[in-house]
Amino acid sequence: MRNVVVTEVPRPDREDIATLRGYGVATLHEAMGRVGSLGPDLRPIQQGLTVAGSAVTALCWPGDNLMIHVAVEQCRPGDLLVVASAAPSTHGMFGELFATALAHRGVTAVISDTGVRDTQELREMGFGAWSRHVSAQGTVKATAGHVNLPVVIAGQRIEAGDVVVADDDGVVVVPRARVAETIAASQARLEKETATRAAFRQGELGLDRYRLRPLLEELGVAYKTHEQALRDGDLT
Amino acid sequence: MRNVVVTEVPRPDREDIATLRGYGVATLHEAMGRVGSLGPDLRPIQQGLTVAGSAVTALCWPGDNLMIHVAVEQCRPGDLLVVASAAPSTHGMFGELFATALAHRGVTAVISDTGVRDTQELREMGFGAWSRHVSAQGTVKATAGHVNLPVVIAGQRIEAGDVVVADDDGVVVVPRARVAETIAASQARLEKETATRAAFRQGELGLDRYRLRPLLEELGVAYKTHEQALRDGDLT
Amino acid sequence: MRNVVVTEVPRPDREDIATLRGYGVATLHEAMGRVGSLGPDLRPIQQGLTVAGSAVTALCWPGDNLMIHVAVEQCRPGDLLVVASAAPSTHGMFGELFATALAHRGVTAVISDTGVRDTQELREMGFGAWSRHVSAQGTVKATAGHVNLPVVIAGQRIEAGDVVVADDDGVVVVPRARVAETIAASQARLEKETATRAAFRQGELGLDRYRLRPLLEELGVAYKTHEQALRDGDLT
Amino acid sequence: MRNVVVTEVPRPDREDIATLRGYGVATLHEAMGRVGSLGPDLRPIQQGLTVAGSAVTALCWPGDNLMIHVAVEQCRPGDLLVVASAAPSTHGMFGELFATALAHRGVTAVISDTGVRDTQELREMGFGAWSRHVSAQGTVKATAGHVNLPVVIAGQRIEAGDVVVADDDGVVVVPRARVAETIAASQARLEKETATRAAFRQGELGLDRYRLRPLLEELGVAYKTHEQALRDGDLT
Amino acid sequence: MRNVVVTEVPRPDREDIATLRGYGVATLHEAMGRVGSLGPDLRPIQQGLTVAGSAVTALCWPGDNLMIHVAVEQCRPGDLLVVASAAPSTHGMFGELFATALAHRGVTAVISDTGVRDTQELREMGFGAWSRHVSAQGTVKATAGHVNLPVVIAGQRIEAGDVVVADDDGVVVVPRARVAETIAASQARLEKETATRAAFRQGELGLDRYRLRPLLEELGVAYKTHEQALRDGDLT
Amino acid sequence: MRNVVVTEVPRPDREDIATLRGYGVATLHEAMGRVGSLGPDLRPIQQGLTVAGSAVTALCWPGDNLMIHVAVEQCRPGDLLVVASAAPSTHGMFGELFATALAHRGVTAVISDTGVRDTQELREMGFGAWSRHVSAQGTVKATAGHVNLPVVIAGQRIEAGDVVVADDDGVVVVPRARVAETIAASQARLEKETATRAAFRQGELGLDRYRLRPLLEELGVAYKTHEQALRDGDLT
Repeated sequence: MRNVVVTEVPRPDREDIATLRGYGVATLHEAMGRVGSLGPDLRPIQQGLTVAGSAVTALCWPGDNLMIHVAVEQCRPGDLLVVASAAPSTHGMFGELFATALAHRGVTAVISDTGVRDTQELREMGFGAWSRHVSAQGTVKATAGHVNLPVVIAGQRIEAGDVVVADDDGVVVVPRARVAETIAASQARLEKETATRAAFRQGELGLDRYRLRPLLEELGVAYKTHEQALRDGDLT
Repeated sequence: MRNVVVTEVPRPDREDIATLRGYGVATLHEAMGRVGSLGPDLRPIQQGLTVAGSAVTALCWPGDNLMIHVAVEQCRPGDLLVVASAAPSTHGMFGELFATALAHRGVTAVISDTGVRDTQELREMGFGAWSRHVSAQGTVKATAGHVNLPVVIAGQRIEAGDVVVADDDGVVVVPRARVAETIAASQARLEKETATRAAFRQGELGLDRYRLRPLLEELGVAYKTHEQALRDGDLT
Repeated sequence: MRNVVVTEVPRPDREDIATLRGYGVATLHEAMGRVGSLGPDLRPIQQGLTVAGSAVTALCWPGDNLMIHVAVEQCRPGDLLVVASAAPSTHGMFGELFATALAHRGVTAVISDTGVRDTQELREMGFGAWSRHVSAQGTVKATAGHVNLPVVIAGQRIEAGDVVVADDDGVVVVPRARVAETIAASQARLEKETATRAAFRQGELGLDRYRLRPLLEELGVAYKTHEQALRDGDLT
Repeated sequence: MRNVVVTEVPRPDREDIATLRGYGVATLHEAMGRVGSLGPDLRPIQQGLTVAGSAVTALCWPGDNLMIHVAVEQCRPGDLLVVASAAPSTHGMFGELFATALAHRGVTAVISDTGVRDTQELREMGFGAWSRHVSAQGTVKATAGHVNLPVVIAGQRIEAGDVVVADDDGVVVVPRARVAETIAASQARLEKETATRAAFRQGELGLDRYRLRPLLEELGVAYKTHEQALRDGDLT
Repeated sequence: MRNVVVTEVPRPDREDIATLRGYGVATLHEAMGRVGSLGPDLRPIQQGLTVAGSAVTALCWPGDNLMIHVAVEQCRPGDLLVVASAAPSTHGMFGELFATALAHRGVTAVISDTGVRDTQELREMGFGAWSRHVSAQGTVKATAGHVNLPVVIAGQRIEAGDVVVADDDGVVVVPRARVAETIAASQARLEKETATRAAFRQGELGLDRYRLRPLLEELGVAYKTHEQALRDGDLT
Repeated sequence: MRNVVVTEVPRPDREDIATLRGYGVATLHEAMGRVGSLGPDLRPIQQGLTVAGSAVTALCWPGDNLMIHVAVEQCRPGDLLVVASAAPSTHGMFGELFATALAHRGVTAVISDTGVRDTQELREMGFGAWSRHVSAQGTVKATAGHVNLPVVIAGQRIEAGDVVVADDDGVVVVPRARVAETIAASQARLEKETATRAAFRQGELGLDRYRLRPLLEELGVAYKTHEQALRDGDLT
């Protein structure tokens, strides 16, 4: 574990960040080719909030929030703080005091692979939080880690300056180098989905819209009535 | 895995479904003899909603939602869609586009042993969802499964045409053949609970109402004061 | 497992309980020296509620709520019911009828290491619940356990007459013998946090306020620009 | 939960059971169409043992082994005991005394969805055990369940008289009605695998043997050198 | 967390420890009234080894083995080292170097609620290990904890000077004050089990030996033939 | 997910691989600065085997082993196959036929983030396997993935051509660019550990050898006798 703090990280364009935020997590994940999700176990402590920002990454030792203090100093307006741990940890490493310090610096949310606490206060402040755990359990400040080096959460690599977007479906990471193509692909997907939604509202079926019936036939999917299935012993 | 789609499944009476819905999950589970629950890990994405319907069942391959498209076509007003997976899966297999297609067909909720996504949109639509995971992670459409054959979720068998009821306590399945007896038993239980509730409000104890004191005696449960317990070394 | 029910348990002062409630779970946990938390897996079924009370403890056999009936009789106004299980259990051991009986006796919440049910009804009653599971699954009344002997939940020992406080961050236990010192330490912490909050709102950094920069130096934490880190191969 | 004990269960032919045992778990699972596995969490307490038998099924209440005593009486030579629980349970419900009683009756293994104990003694006796847990934790004998009704373990339904086969890869269930077709399909698969094994030993590739190259092309899988991938940014 | 190291802990009689070891984990657990087990998740890294000793307890911060170094100094011949963590931790906190130091001091095993490593070397040394995890992941030495204060593992309290016994079934704790009564109760149980084993070998059934048939009748357990069960619809 | 297969991957020197193998997983992990471990959940199916090789990486869709077939063709003598999944999966994706094909190509082990099967056959062949699950459950060959692009397992990034070493403690990855420095650091560590082992055998304490006593003093760790601790109430 290199004990390094990286400064002067290039950030993506803030308008691009706002545009990505507009698509939401599921669309971005699909538009990038079904990658980038931080998985089903990072859950929001609030409902109905969508955030996006440039990642400031911190790697902490389990039960130790020293490097979050270091990371706060590296945050600028438009950033999101991303906290990883060197090993699985349930500690409530982030709470209302950190949120207060970050809010002063123009940061509006935290993504944590460990725990957060003061959740009611965070909701009242409107400070967003997505985390693996909610826990009151406190931490020490004794062991080094790194800030703004790449971290991995739920198998997904996050570099400082990547765009992180989070909503009720979870968290997704858009690498800085893929921002432009992801906006284009998301927009295309959005338009396609709008058309599909309209068609579905009229009663069109996915089987027809996506031309799946030939595939079913090729896979040998057989249709039979309930009566026939009963006779064939399919229902036991 | 048989690649079969069963059509023309007999449904229970829609008034019976509405009646079952009125009892709620916990009462139905008890009335059937404490069976039928899909367990504590299928959680609602919304709060305060109770749904009931005739099950349309789909078995998917992990990470593959092809058979949900097949199942949609089999849905009629009053049905609920029940999605199982051939192996544990966290994918967000069901989202707002499927809900749009189902809403057109008179279906108001999904029960999934895998993941759902677009949760904020589903809540805004009033489309109910109970699932093991919330996840943005997308799927392919490549592998066959079956529709309206029996599936098993959390150890509970569900056949097409069984009644599925879901509320904040989870999900319960009432086999079609047991609908009448379950309504009768639920009604009896409801009346008994109403009387118990009134008695408890007056201060009667369960120990007396259920005549548990003789059982405690038989089991050798001893009462002693805190002072006595301290002296006996019970509190260490 | 001793089959004992302890009566006449000494309770802490009710004003002290109210004072402890005011500090909230995270502050109490820190003030006691970062102990007493029941961990991240006991979650509230409601949001925004804080409760505190003197613990009445029940140890049940998995899937058996006999001893909860016994415990109800031991409850007085100002108590909270704490339910442990002799082995991991997901059963919905506690529901609206128990809450009705407890409300009559001046008890306003339950803490359960197993499951609860009737969650919507509990929320409507304003009866608080923190539990490991939500589950409709019912129980029998057949096996003995104990009431008001010490129990352990998530590695934390709870004695009858200890103060239990619960909010959105989880549950914490303050041993009866430590109530006075915990109030003093919580008050000191609260004042310190108030000052820190004010300082953070003005932009002071934790690095400076907690004098962490010398520690970082001692630990060998190095600052370098993104450009330099790229050249050093730190970002791969 | 019906409190029923079913007697005089028809068993499959014992030669067929021996034949099925010879194929092993993975082959049987494949031959049935990739169904029947009890999943990755039922692990053997020994290594290198393969067993097969006609299932005697018991459904117990968590932490209660009363119905195992009932099931023992129903066992005959050539049977295997299959223990399920009405809710998740870690108790060591089965140990050396039960194995002694079963060995007297010609039964050589147990499959348990809960826990077993006396594992060293069981290994010394040569009595096979596959279970979800190993645990010393004891049980009571207080609550009814059923014997030889269908049970579900890990989503797989098991009826009394089904053939259960277990080896180091886990446990598989062959429904009694499918014994003949499964033997035929397993034999065909075995022969195919023998030929494939010989071909692989000669260096043939699966890509060629299963004719997968056209599929890769259809799916758009592209081959490129490491140098090219580096240039294309694929390796970041 | 009190930063205290307790010295001069009274140990139980070494002959008593050897006697307890002879009974094994399952018998001791039963003899104490089905308590004292550290649960199913602390597994041995070896097979066929039974150890017993007087507990030296260490509470570590997650990922920090400083207090194990402190604990080593407190160990004497006949002790076992018991390692707990202030929060869940998977680190490999204990390895071959610690075992070497302990072996010099007459200690032959470790029980750890976190992880161990160098498992092959430990097996070659004949040094016993029971742990929640096996992991190569290393630790720091930065944060205080305590030694020989009570710790809790899997809900079970362990005090310094308690007897810890471990075998293939897991780990059990006999409080120092209960050693004599536990030996007596284990001996009685052993004799009863010997008689039961002999009876089972002769074919007696648990149903008769434990006089369970009247209980089954009282619980309403009904026997019926397979043919009758089929007619009654019990087998669907 | 890019559907790319990378060929002509540069491999590390085979003598270096053999040297790294000699140090074992725990030493390499420490020598790199406590990074590189694939965590406690990838377990060997055999005991006492250490392997090392140049990684060939495959990313599969859950339940689909198509890309393993593709990867086999890319394997050369001295390689190890590393299988990742696009989402958590328990399928037995790898078995004896793949091992036969790989053995022909000079590959001696597989590392899989999903499941393996035919474990008894693999042990008999002497083909090593480390995996998250053992499962008989079979797979399809329908969906694309990639080969020799970077994959992530348990938060650890693995590139084709990195050195993977596995033993009873788990799996560690040494990036190709860090091979030389890791050998040097491992050798230094080995020598230091040899000296420490000799000192511990003579009875020296870690407290003295690592000069930890001043740190304990600084952290305020207090020593007191059992008698004193009792009086201070530390033991309750």
